[in-house]
Amino acid sequence: MSTKIRAGVYGASGYAGQNVVEILLGHPDVELIFATSNTYSGTPIPGSNLAYIPSEEADLSAADVVFLALPHRASAQMAARALAVGVKVIDLSADFRLDTPERYQEWYGAAHPHPELLPVPYGLPEINRANLQHTHLVAVPGCYPTTTLLGLYPLLKAHVLAENAPIIVDAKSGVSGAGREPKPTTHFVEVFGNLSPYNPGRSHRHVGEIEQEIHRINGNVGTLIFTPHLLPVDRGLMASIYVTLKPEFSSDQAQSLFEEVYENEPLVDVLPPGQQATLKHVVRTNRCAISLTPVTSPYLHITSVTDNLRKGAATLAVQSFNLMFELPEFTALL
Amino acid sequence: MSTKIRAGVYGASGYAGQNVVEILLGHPDVELIFATSNTYSGTPIPGSNLAYIPSEEADLSAADVVFLALPHRASAQMAARALAVGVKVIDLSADFRLDTPERYQEWYGAAHPHPELLPVPYGLPEINRANLQHTHLVAVPGCYPTTTLLGLYPLLKAHVLAENAPIIVDAKSGVSGAGREPKPTTHFVEVFGNLSPYNPGRSHRHVGEIEQEIHRINGNVGTLIFTPHLLPVDRGLMASIYVTLKPEFSSDQAQSLFEEVYENEPLVDVLPPGQQATLKHVVRTNRCAISLTPVTSPYLHITSVTDNLRKGAATLAVQSFNLMFELPEFTALL
Amino acid sequence: MSTKIRAGVYGASGYAGQNVVEILLGHPDVELIFATSNTYSGTPIPGSNLAYIPSEEADLSAADVVFLALPHRASAQMAARALAVGVKVIDLSADFRLDTPERYQEWYGAAHPHPELLPVPYGLPEINRANLQHTHLVAVPGCYPTTTLLGLYPLLKAHVLAENAPIIVDAKSGVSGAGREPKPTTHFVEVFGNLSPYNPGRSHRHVGEIEQEIHRINGNVGTLIFTPHLLPVDRGLMASIYVTLKPEFSSDQAQSLFEEVYENEPLVDVLPPGQQATLKHVVRTNRCAISLTPVTSPYLHITSVTDNLRKGAATLAVQSFNLMFELPEFTALL
Amino acid sequence: MSTKIRAGVYGASGYAGQNVVEILLGHPDVELIFATSNTYSGTPIPGSNLAYIPSEEADLSAADVVFLALPHRASAQMAARALAVGVKVIDLSADFRLDTPERYQEWYGAAHPHPELLPVPYGLPEINRANLQHTHLVAVPGCYPTTTLLGLYPLLKAHVLAENAPIIVDAKSGVSGAGREPKPTTHFVEVFGNLSPYNPGRSHRHVGEIEQEIHRINGNVGTLIFTPHLLPVDRGLMASIYVTLKPEFSSDQAQSLFEEVYENEPLVDVLPPGQQATLKHVVRTNRCAISLTPVTSPYLHITSVTDNLRKGAATLAVQSFNLMFELPEFTALL
Repeated sequence: MSTKIRAGVYGASGYAGQNVVEILLGHPDVELIFATSNTYSGTPIPGSNLAYIPSEEADLSAADVVFLALPHRASAQMAARALAVGVKVIDLSADFRLDTPERYQEWYGAAHPHPELLPVPYGLPEINRANLQHTHLVAVPGCYPTTTLLGLYPLLKAHVLAENAPIIVDAKSGVSGAGREPKPTTHFVEVFGNLSPYNPGRSHRHVGEIEQEIHRINGNVGTLIFTPHLLPVDRGLMASIYVTLKPEFSSDQAQSLFEEVYENEPLVDVLPPGQQATLKHVVRTNRCAISLTPVTSPYLHITSVTDNLRKGAATLAVQSFNLMFELPEFTALL
Repeated sequence: MSTKIRAGVYGASGYAGQNVVEILLGHPDVELIFATSNTYSGTPIPGSNLAYIPSEEADLSAADVVFLALPHRASAQMAARALAVGVKVIDLSADFRLDTPERYQEWYGAAHPHPELLPVPYGLPEINRANLQHTHLVAVPGCYPTTTLLGLYPLLKAHVLAENAPIIVDAKSGVSGAGREPKPTTHFVEVFGNLSPYNPGRSHRHVGEIEQEIHRINGNVGTLIFTPHLLPVDRGLMASIYVTLKPEFSSDQAQSLFEEVYENEPLVDVLPPGQQATLKHVVRTNRCAISLTPVTSPYLHITSVTDNLRKGAATLAVQSFNLMFELPEFTALL
Repeated sequence: MSTKIRAGVYGASGYAGQNVVEILLGHPDVELIFATSNTYSGTPIPGSNLAYIPSEEADLSAADVVFLALPHRASAQMAARALAVGVKVIDLSADFRLDTPERYQEWYGAAHPHPELLPVPYGLPEINRANLQHTHLVAVPGCYPTTTLLGLYPLLKAHVLAENAPIIVDAKSGVSGAGREPKPTTHFVEVFGNLSPYNPGRSHRHVGEIEQEIHRINGNVGTLIFTPHLLPVDRGLMASIYVTLKPEFSSDQAQSLFEEVYENEPLVDVLPPGQQATLKHVVRTNRCAISLTPVTSPYLHITSVTDNLRKGAATLAVQSFNLMFELPEFTALL
Repeated sequence: MSTKIRAGVYGASGYAGQNVVEILLGHPDVELIFATSNTYSGTPIPGSNLAYIPSEEADLSAADVVFLALPHRASAQMAARALAVGVKVIDLSADFRLDTPERYQEWYGAAHPHPELLPVPYGLPEINRANLQHTHLVAVPGCYPTTTLLGLYPLLKAHVLAENAPIIVDAKSGVSGAGREPKPTTHFVEVFGNLSPYNPGRSHRHVGEIEQEIHRINGNVGTLIFTPHLLPVDRGLMASIYVTLKPEFSSDQAQSLFEEVYENEPLVDVLPPGQQATLKHVVRTNRCAISLTPVTSPYLHITSVTDNLRKGAATLAVQSFNLMFELPEFTALL
């Protein structure tokens, strides 16, 4: 008789969904009972004896927990259905990341489908671990917010950022971050040999989410400026962060601050001084790597990298799941 | 008063269409009067003062000639319309490449929309130049057939291929060969780091076209075996050809045979012995490059490369156009 | 008290060596006691507490076995030293793959440094498992031979290849196959967007090795024609094989023959009819995938793919090691 | 009797040198009399009847002008030799970009080989056109400085940058920027799928050059922070620039300022509002493209892109050459 936790994955053939399935298949305490895909239903799931099934054929009530890697809006609706029948939910969409329906309306241009469920704990354990135990619903952060927030967190927590200077994030993401559905912007010929900024300045939807979380930690910081770029690689995300520090804290002190804050975090590596974080440090791993460059005393440059599908999505989902079910947080992730 | 030839391009925003436009904009005897694109209508055309227009807004009757870079079936219909009003046609689709409606039915699974127009001269001047003057309609070959046929032509013409041995073509194409419309198979993430055979053996539609042209030159050859692969590059096509020779012709003689046949062809380079043809030899040029490897006396290996959008499409179209209008064949191409 | 097998790796910072180390670090019966690299000595080895050491500092006699990922000639010398002090050897270089000093002289242009050690069992367990137990020295095959031989083996064993027709192998390899030392041919700018044949026909050194092994299984086959290409990907190898069958065996029968022969081989996947083997099937795995296309009755097209650093190198090395030490063959590889 | 200007190119087989040769071969007023390469001497030069020759075989005194695409220090020595015999010099190395020997010592860690030749006009015509006529020696800027300075120039000239805020440049370059000599960092396997910052903050040698030119235009600006990244593409360079404006100038005014300043510059395109500059806008062209994002009133984000080998090197060299010889500045470049 199996005492494993029965998990289902909705939207399992998308890139984030595939990574959730991949990790769950190696999780000793989980039995994957279904994985849905309307586009690929019937196709075998690598590494398992299952095939994708259409979402309406999934036996929701047989699950203890579901992971939702669905488009926003569809995700909130499925989450509500699952919670209604007592199934816990790890949501990888954007639907529950913003605390209020107003903010959702502002960034996603539509009424929130289930405002009664807000706010929801934000699934970034390194920052928000305390709120992730005994939950029924977790909102897994976006890949840009995760990588950016991990790169800023020690500074925010220590209240050392100058209040009147902007926080500049020049970010670059592999193409899997744009999803598996074919689009003109993800056509091989358009991406190959190219580099493209998109939604620059303050127009990307993740700005709302990053700012919300920044302010939760520390209300007195300057304007967030955030420009993402599409990078000609399949996976990997880099946030290049430029900040101005308060006079009482010199950029030279950042290295030891970061090392201290992340000392016991097995999935965050603070690289030694002089070494630069690159995509190769993290692609196909569950880790975030951070390197620090003191430029002059008030100016600090931070490079934070993750695999957008792992630490920027599926890894966080499984960390949150482990916390939710009171399992060791890093089970299946080390 | 302009005495230039007035040309229009249908399907001008596709990859082949873009290359036709690019060459025509530099052609001293051509005035580009319109370029259609339903998807990108209104978008400016780089290097010109024009914007794409929807095809129904194009003034067909104002043109002396139209280039059709449309999907098959749509192309035949537009060709018939153009010819009916006295406009000459250079067709880059598959619609007029096969000589008979039966063969079209066999390979394209549908009745030919205008069988009364068949057969049509095949626009591969290096092989078929004599039939391309004073025409009203030309069928521009596919990229795989062009590259393969240029690699085989001297051997076919000299009747030195063993009659009972197969002609093996292992071909590799850049992703632009699959067209600009986004598809799962052309998604950056699927192509990056990958190499995929498709329609192997004798199942690709270009088999019918290659065989037809082979047999027009030389009826007594073995089975064509043709396996294309999708290559993680944007443009460029390589046909790796393996043939068996008749006992009276040794592979050592191939180099001088090829050099002789292509001696006066400015767009076909036979590389010196020992040098191998690579994509870099031809990408973004109007040329085909060929290298020869005598393996043993009866076995010859040929590598033939083109830019699939240039010598494999737009370049041929303009060569054919020049011949049709009795201009020097290589105008705008050297 | 550890009862693990103490292993050392020479040439551990090269691409093949890195993969050997990676697998050994996850091997439950192995303790990695050193990993040498003259170029990177002092650099930490990811996933371990070790750093690379210069080869002269390695304590050879403390090892039970050494894996040699050294240049040829250097490898044979180290193998002789190790064997002399009772240390077993898994050699990944070309030094022991050819059975006789004459053949070595022919293909490597130099006298064999230790002819007294020849011949050595060929470390391709799927074909040669019986000879790999209780050995002291194993010659791990090259990546091209492995991928080619696995694609041919069922046909060779069943004696169904036509005797007078060539075996044509059009092969494509990722750049890691060319080694980690920077060379003009592996410069990013030269490889990006390119595809290059090299050592075509019968000039690549692996021809000697492939032919030797073909003939060991089946002496009556035609000429091997082998053209490798450098592919713009980091890892992955595809052998596209074209063969002619004896009249008594039709290409339609190949699927069941291959399925039967590889039925119990966990690292060889024969794909279902109609599916094509691509690099994505195998990259970063320990597996070989094979797909079959019956072209016409006598002509069969086979696509065989491996990760050149895994099943084409390190995986074979560890399979051979497991057999040598009477461990379950696939330990650390599934 | 030819009245063309006789030009020679030293270091002609490097990536920048190749591009100089390519442009000069199409220049109507130039006769290329030699192109040197010690590594590739004897190899034919594509598009010409010449082959590379060793530098000591070049007939320096037969030239009217030489382009130097040599390593720094070697370049200064050759420049001195050329000037001594009355040959004009366009230098693409770093040797003459810094105004004083002290600054050279600071950034290049060595005494300047020919301090008596300093200072030298800086070959960025869009900014420094007036000083480039009737010169005998021009220092062609580096690719990072060019792309950065063109993106900043209108703001510097208008004196609208806040004096106490940093100028942040997050730059990304294709691999050809690192030169043709094979190095571990330019190995295909290391670059493929990766993105790497290097010399971050204020440690890259181009910082000295950018700051010198910024201050020549406008002394009152904040600290330059400059982090370059190695991008997995062959060519193309993007400078992502983040600046803070003086209160009297709003970011909304930047678009018309830039359009005005570059109105008559045929090689600088200011993109319309809302469009983002990408590498595809400029790769294999002679142009710089710039897009502007007003973030909030005081914060402006600028994206400036060039082909590092063209507008970032060879194009500038030929612009400077044209000015030096009183030819129309854009001859051979439009």
